[in-house]
Amino acid sequence: MRTYCFLGIDVGNTKLAFGLVEGDARAFHEKRVIATEPHLGAEQALEKIIVQTCNMLEMAPKPVAGIGIAFGGFVDVTRTVGLASPNFPGLENVPMVEMIRELAPGVPVSMDNDANVAGVGEAMYGKARGHREAVYLTISTGIGGAVLFDGKPLAGSQGLAAEFGHMIVQPNGRQCTCGSRGCLEAIASGTSIARMARERVRGRDSLINNLAGTPDDITAGTVCKAAQAGDELAKAIVQEVAFYLGIGLANIISGLDPDIVVLGGGVMNSADILLPPAIQLVERHLTVRGAKVPPIEASDIHDDVALWGAMALARAAAGKR
Amino acid sequence: MRTYCFLGIDVGNTKLAFGLVEGDARAFHEKRVIATEPHLGAEQALEKIIVQTCNMLEMAPKPVAGIGIAFGGFVDVTRTVGLASPNFPGLENVPMVEMIRELAPGVPVSMDNDANVAGVGEAMYGKARGHREAVYLTISTGIGGAVLFDGKPLAGSQGLAAEFGHMIVQPNGRQCTCGSRGCLEAIASGTSIARMARERVRGRDSLINNLAGTPDDITAGTVCKAAQAGDELAKAIVQEVAFYLGIGLANIISGLDPDIVVLGGGVMNSADILLPPAIQLVERHLTVRGAKVPPIEASDIHDDVALWGAMALARAAAGKR
Repeated sequence: MRTYCFLGIDVGNTKLAFGLVEGDARAFHEKRVIATEPHLGAEQALEKIIVQTCNMLEMAPKPVAGIGIAFGGFVDVTRTVGLASPNFPGLENVPMVEMIRELAPGVPVSMDNDANVAGVGEAMYGKARGHREAVYLTISTGIGGAVLFDGKPLAGSQGLAAEFGHMIVQPNGRQCTCGSRGCLEAIASGTSIARMARERVRGRDSLINNLAGTPDDITAGTVCKAAQAGDELAKAIVQEVAFYLGIGLANIISGLDPDIVVLGGGVMNSADILLPPAIQLVERHLTVRGAKVPPIEASDIHDDVALWGAMALARAAAGKR
Repeated sequence: MRTYCFLGIDVGNTKLAFGLVEGDARAFHEKRVIATEPHLGAEQALEKIIVQTCNMLEMAPKPVAGIGIAFGGFVDVTRTVGLASPNFPGLENVPMVEMIRELAPGVPVSMDNDANVAGVGEAMYGKARGHREAVYLTISTGIGGAVLFDGKPLAGSQGLAAEFGHMIVQPNGRQCTCGSRGCLEAIASGTSIARMARERVRGRDSLINNLAGTPDDITAGTVCKAAQAGDELAKAIVQEVAFYLGIGLANIISGLDPDIVVLGGGVMNSADILLPPAIQLVERHLTVRGAKVPPIEASDIHDDVALWGAMALARAAAGKR
């Protein structure tokens, strides 16, 4: 089976990641991560992508049968052009697939939005693997997700299924960046957790301030670390976030009754403190009516989930699912 | 195609309904509805079912190729025995399929819970027909639903998918009969609307009192009628119910992005007043982020949806989907 390799490329706003796997292996033969440095401009970033892709192609121990690209921004309908990346001004209308294809003539190349492929990566390489029906929820800057049936994502009529970040969990609640109110994302995303902390620590004595230095440096990670160290204000924020995350999870499970729910994204680096109280709420809500609670687990590949998603794309491009 | 007939039987707690259709027709050749009268006991009700089934079999203009039964209660795993009907004490452990099979030797008979088949009935005979992905929400005594892919319901890992009635729409909200709080069912089911009205009209001057006679006679229909006539208290209840129904619909659509949402159940007899404000909320919530709102429509077969579901079962039993 391992007579060929696959190359995955994750074009993110913070990092560019490149991975090589042999055949159906579930570990990298080679993985490289470099900073994107968007402030240096799109040309610089594209140059890095080209150089690293060439390096990886050279390092492949077997012929590369497919290349997949997870693009951290909007992708055109033909899935060949990166239209724009909201957090990387200047990276617009890049014929990404064409660019990579020129480096590896004859090798099929496939691209999709990183959020879209993350669920497939989880389903093919992570804890959702082998489950008939899985839900993947990613909690980072925003909140996205995927509903996977036998590893294939539910698209929905407009390609907008699994927008769990915009589930209303707090009627008339906090303002969301989408323009509506009370969305799960407006409370439980990394950005929202940090914003909530920033609003509340001002002029207060909290470990959050000490850990962060300036208010601008506060992240969801800071808040969770402070809560773990016993800071009351941080604990209150974590409790609130976990409460609404629990409602979101309870509603997802009531609606879909999946075999497993896997959570990824940067905020899940703090799964230890955020997830148990959320799961408790789900258990209370479901067990009263006799429903079983499926496993709700933090991803063990979430740092690389988009890269694994790119790998899944590469396999699909090669016709080797 | 119309060389045979199908017989559908809906065993409900209030009514027993029987329908005959020819082949793939979408209208009844013959339909009969009689009162169940559970207070007269299970034997009486079963006698009525037998007599009417025989009548219908005799009236069939073509050979009956399949019989489907929608049972208003729990059904055993073999789908042949009606285990119990919560609102019909005494109707327990009835070998319903066997009983009907004896009346029509050689004809395949199939049974399922009425809530389970309602969605399939809607998908085969109602507005969800022909849609790739449809959501059916039934609002009556309780709130249930179905997610239909190409007419087939999503089961979930425990057969508990589409339990939209237990979506939390009001955190720490109203007590639900399931034992949890803030469920959609605790606010927007027929029972809950009536209960809300009963709690609020006591000692107040409201048209609800005049329409209902005694507080015990208040139904969701009374409340909606009073609201339509301009009663302030009733209007406030309708507004509240529609608000949470809107949240429920917005969340279903954000999660599943279906082609259509069809609402059935007795409460949808008041769709005129309940649905428009709920849809408005959905539109506000979805359009801010550029998502389109799918059609959200009241079923046009909802009085007979379980009977049509039984018909779908009959067709499946005959191997003629």
